[in-house]
Amino acid sequence: MLSRRGLLGAAAVLAGSGTVSGRAQAATLPEAPKTSTNTMQPPLFPSSGPDYQPVVTLNGWTLPWRMNGDWKEFHLVAEPVDREFAPGMTAHLWGYNGQSPGPTIEAVEGDKVRLFVTNKLPEHTTVHWHGMLVPNGMDGVGGVTQPHIEPGKTFVYEFELKGSGTFMYHPHSDEMVQMAMGMMGMFIVHPRDPKFRRVDRDFVFLMSAYAIDPGTSLPRVSEMTDFNLWTWNSRVFPGIDPMPVRLGDRVRVRMANLTMTNHPIHLHGHHFSVTCTDGGWVPETAQWPETTIDVPVGAIRAFDVIADNPGDWAFHCHKSHHTMNAMGHALPAWPKWVRWKCRCRITRYR
Amino acid sequence: MLSRRGLLGAAAVLAGSGTVSGRAQAATLPEAPKTSTNTMQPPLFPSSGPDYQPVVTLNGWTLPWRMNGDWKEFHLVAEPVDREFAPGMTAHLWGYNGQSPGPTIEAVEGDKVRLFVTNKLPEHTTVHWHGMLVPNGMDGVGGVTQPHIEPGKTFVYEFELKGSGTFMYHPHSDEMVQMAMGMMGMFIVHPRDPKFRRVDRDFVFLMSAYAIDPGTSLPRVSEMTDFNLWTWNSRVFPGIDPMPVRLGDRVRVRMANLTMTNHPIHLHGHHFSVTCTDGGWVPETAQWPETTIDVPVGAIRAFDVIADNPGDWAFHCHKSHHTMNAMGHALPAWPKWVRWKCRCRITRYR
Amino acid sequence: MLSRRGLLGAAAVLAGSGTVSGRAQAATLPEAPKTSTNTMQPPLFPSSGPDYQPVVTLNGWTLPWRMNGDWKEFHLVAEPVDREFAPGMTAHLWGYNGQSPGPTIEAVEGDKVRLFVTNKLPEHTTVHWHGMLVPNGMDGVGGVTQPHIEPGKTFVYEFELKGSGTFMYHPHSDEMVQMAMGMMGMFIVHPRDPKFRRVDRDFVFLMSAYAIDPGTSLPRVSEMTDFNLWTWNSRVFPGIDPMPVRLGDRVRVRMANLTMTNHPIHLHGHHFSVTCTDGGWVPETAQWPETTIDVPVGAIRAFDVIADNPGDWAFHCHKSHHTMNAMGHALPAWPKWVRWKCRCRITRYR
Repeated sequence: MLSRRGLLGAAAVLAGSGTVSGRAQAATLPEAPKTSTNTMQPPLFPSSGPDYQPVVTLNGWTLPWRMNGDWKEFHLVAEPVDREFAPGMTAHLWGYNGQSPGPTIEAVEGDKVRLFVTNKLPEHTTVHWHGMLVPNGMDGVGGVTQPHIEPGKTFVYEFELKGSGTFMYHPHSDEMVQMAMGMMGMFIVHPRDPKFRRVDRDFVFLMSAYAIDPGTSLPRVSEMTDFNLWTWNSRVFPGIDPMPVRLGDRVRVRMANLTMTNHPIHLHGHHFSVTCTDGGWVPETAQWPETTIDVPVGAIRAFDVIADNPGDWAFHCHKSHHTMNAMGHALPAWPKWVRWKCRCRITRYR
Repeated sequence: MLSRRGLLGAAAVLAGSGTVSGRAQAATLPEAPKTSTNTMQPPLFPSSGPDYQPVVTLNGWTLPWRMNGDWKEFHLVAEPVDREFAPGMTAHLWGYNGQSPGPTIEAVEGDKVRLFVTNKLPEHTTVHWHGMLVPNGMDGVGGVTQPHIEPGKTFVYEFELKGSGTFMYHPHSDEMVQMAMGMMGMFIVHPRDPKFRRVDRDFVFLMSAYAIDPGTSLPRVSEMTDFNLWTWNSRVFPGIDPMPVRLGDRVRVRMANLTMTNHPIHLHGHHFSVTCTDGGWVPETAQWPETTIDVPVGAIRAFDVIADNPGDWAFHCHKSHHTMNAMGHALPAWPKWVRWKCRCRITRYR
Repeated sequence: MLSRRGLLGAAAVLAGSGTVSGRAQAATLPEAPKTSTNTMQPPLFPSSGPDYQPVVTLNGWTLPWRMNGDWKEFHLVAEPVDREFAPGMTAHLWGYNGQSPGPTIEAVEGDKVRLFVTNKLPEHTTVHWHGMLVPNGMDGVGGVTQPHIEPGKTFVYEFELKGSGTFMYHPHSDEMVQMAMGMMGMFIVHPRDPKFRRVDRDFVFLMSAYAIDPGTSLPRVSEMTDFNLWTWNSRVFPGIDPMPVRLGDRVRVRMANLTMTNHPIHLHGHHFSVTCTDGGWVPETAQWPETTIDVPVGAIRAFDVIADNPGDWAFHCHKSHHTMNAMGHALPAWPKWVRWKCRCRITRYR
């Protein structure tokens, strides 16, 4: 086991002349697909194993994997990226496989997963699998459960997926800086039983906040409370894809929060319940009726809603300075405040 | 239907020589009662239809309506108002029908309601019925579900009340500015079954925050985090009416939050449970025992409590800079910090 | 009754030549033990009455009591203290019986308790028993339910403990200043039935925040949002004791928040549920699965977790500026940001 876990030797990594992203380096390293756009890529339907409804990452994508024996192998590359928050607004962030947020990872309860993490940042990093029940050595806390992954190195995480649910991944190494730079992604574990709480459409959003001064492109990473870009999947209104659903669809929306403050997420025209947190599925007896979900920092709230009310519906954080753009958002300049609003469009027919 | 909905023509509005508040303008426009005081007006007991226990809006009032066929007709007038936060402290706000917060609207599950909204502000507005299950065109999101209501115009909303509960109304048009100016009100929908979760006394509070510099009277509407007036029904301690209840009363308190931060509301001497949110009634199996309720932004928490412990009890937000007044609140000047404390007085006999 | 309640005369207090801490002053005043260290003292196992599992206050202690008839008598002394947040970092705070936080008070449901509070501060104070169902006159709200306790005076609180659970005590007199100075403690009421939700280990944490400028030792008590010391039991990482537990232990962790903002508390490697608030025990049907618990201000969340995953696990607030120390925390100077991280160590054998 140890030979497949832990830090790969420098030789293995350098065999590919110093770069590993975008193609397989060796028999032991799976391909690391990357993207440079903010265009949503189609959901990845399962080609083998149990059936599931894949999630949709608006303005994002899902990471392909390869099977190696009975292991699903993924390859994340931590690296500097350019992210377009909205047309004309591009920031220099850190992310994974070409973008921020990193690609969504999807697998199935009981799967054995092996995740190669290659560090192409100018400083060390790690990956913590937030909310997942992993062995201590796979938990990704640099200096506590593993050595930091130095620049140029690849670390291999492997574990079996215990329980389904909604999780996320982010560094636990220079945390404040690396999350302020955009390093994060969602990790969805589908139930082994395809009928368990099945929905028709399943959206994921990762909320992050940036402090980028007008005329600059780099987040101020020591900022703690005064952010000017409140983003969903690192996009700002009106640059966020809408959520098209059909009348009568059962829809799940999974909201993760890696900013510095609570976000009360409000959907118009519907009531719904939180059905899943980053700790697992909420029993029906414990669910509350809601129209505004307060998502704490470092937490996830997934809610299920029946799209029974046709129309274009607003869906936004209810802190009004997050909802609204003060001025100039159509200008190719950094606005001071941007909207955090996404429309949920419900149509009778598609 | 369309002839009764949507924007009334300029002619209809101007028929009354440009003003519509305070009296009926035409057969199609119901009276728009207004008040200029902060004195609590008696609860409005139902004169027809199902019986219910009306709510009490401390330092506020409930909007009268008229029946027109089987429709309940209300008339809101958005306009500049003067609000006395406490003796000697008056601010220039925007509100409805002469005051901020606007009058509480009460009706019954299944009622058909028609709400005329006349805009007497210097800029456009709309009204969003927060938490209510309305048709898309009645949702009040300016530029998305309807055109903005221009100054001098009246828009008519009409819908059937689906489900009982605790809701609110506020603009969805220049949101940050208009809510920072005090535009908001409660909307209570009573159950059609008068016995459903009946209580003896039912109080509503709308929490709002203002940033008004010493020596001035106008909120700074672009402020996002640094407020100096934390109010309940636009009143500050010690200017808030007490909540007198009798020993043994079953009491409901409905707290809505339209500030920019969570408010943990703490009642002394009693335990209680949240029984209703802006999404509906919380099932008994899902209720938590509480003594401090964290009310998120853009959300409502109603809790039920048995007044079984006689005495004068403190009831306040537990963020201590919201609880306490630093200095000078007895002076006729703007204090930097004001108390957000209300007393809940429980007496054996009345 | 009145002769044992309320403010003791000056004569009684001065009988001991002006000081009352550390030893009994008279037959009517029980000993007021004090400590000057941050070293955890062993849990106090019950020597009489119902059996219970005492709590552990890391870097703190539990207040001894004496029996007087069928009353348990405790003596708190409010006074200036020195608190070492971490090696080399000592602040001048206000606390109880020599330290901040004050000692944890433990008793049993149904107990009659008498709590003597002696004020050795330079200003008046009171003690409020947060979340506890006490008679109005014992609630500790200065100027409302009792006169303030002037410097040099002793006030006696007495009441019967209704219901078990997790509570706290803090002043309700010049609240913002006195809590900003560190005056607070936990109050645990154990169930009368020793088997009710029994756990193997039971930890308590009180979260407080301080604003202390570099080179100074005194909190700025008017600060409202910009704190630089986020503490657990008035200690900062790496100065917080670890939480050693054995594999398979049922562990309870009770987190109370007396800062100015929510703290989302995240435990790695485990899922768990909130089982108790400051309002009482959460029914099983209402519990949510969690891995991050958002603890509101002025509230308590106790969660139960099975320690079934061996290793050293991170346990921290997930607001990353609270998690991380920016720089220099090893220097004997005030760091600008300190970690709020505690390790939960789970071992197979002890």
